[in-house]
Amino acid sequence: MSFYKHHVFMCLNKRAAPENCCACHGSEAMQAYAKKRIKELGLNGHGKIRINQSGCLDRCEEGPVMVVYPEEVWYTYVDEHDIDEIIEEHLVKGKVVDRLRI
Amino acid sequence: MSFYKHHVFMCLNKRAAPENCCACHGSEAMQAYAKKRIKELGLNGHGKIRINQSGCLDRCEEGPVMVVYPEEVWYTYVDEHDIDEIIEEHLVKGKVVDRLRI
Repeated sequence: MSFYKHHVFMCLNKRAAPENCCACHGSEAMQAYAKKRIKELGLNGHGKIRINQSGCLDRCEEGPVMVVYPEEVWYTYVDEHDIDEIIEEHLVKGKVVDRLRI
Repeated sequence: MSFYKHHVFMCLNKRAAPENCCACHGSEAMQAYAKKRIKELGLNGHGKIRINQSGCLDRCEEGPVMVVYPEEVWYTYVDEHDIDEIIEEHLVKGKVVDRLRI
């Protein structure tokens, strides 16, 4: 069994303007939101889901970005609605959210 | 093709003593070393290898820890010798280093 069924890494890297960065697009608040929602849903923990912060994932121009392993699906997102859809469709039901995939 | 052939996340989380944490065991220096070595070997970049820092991976008592995706192999390590072995055996040759696996 996997240590985590879905292991999510969300880039929280900050770069100074005019460079693009995930933190410039609110990734810190979205990572906190995702972590809170997974906990509220009782989905956090070993064998289940982990929402991690990471350093720069080097896809800055497509950001903000996250990657879900081990299935290796990359997403971008704008707001809590997008995060909810990734949680409800992908992390809960196992259905990749094509409209947010990069 | 995978965006990264091997995507490595090394926990750099810090916690106050007496709690255990990866940063307490020198993970910051080891992540910097791994990143430097991968760059020196010309293995960094899209389609190749990415060495990332991450927040707490929640395996603190086994730390310092890292995980290599998408193959999902977890390691602990002590020093640069261990990092070199993970790079040379796993990341370059694709052979899991059993003695460091957790």
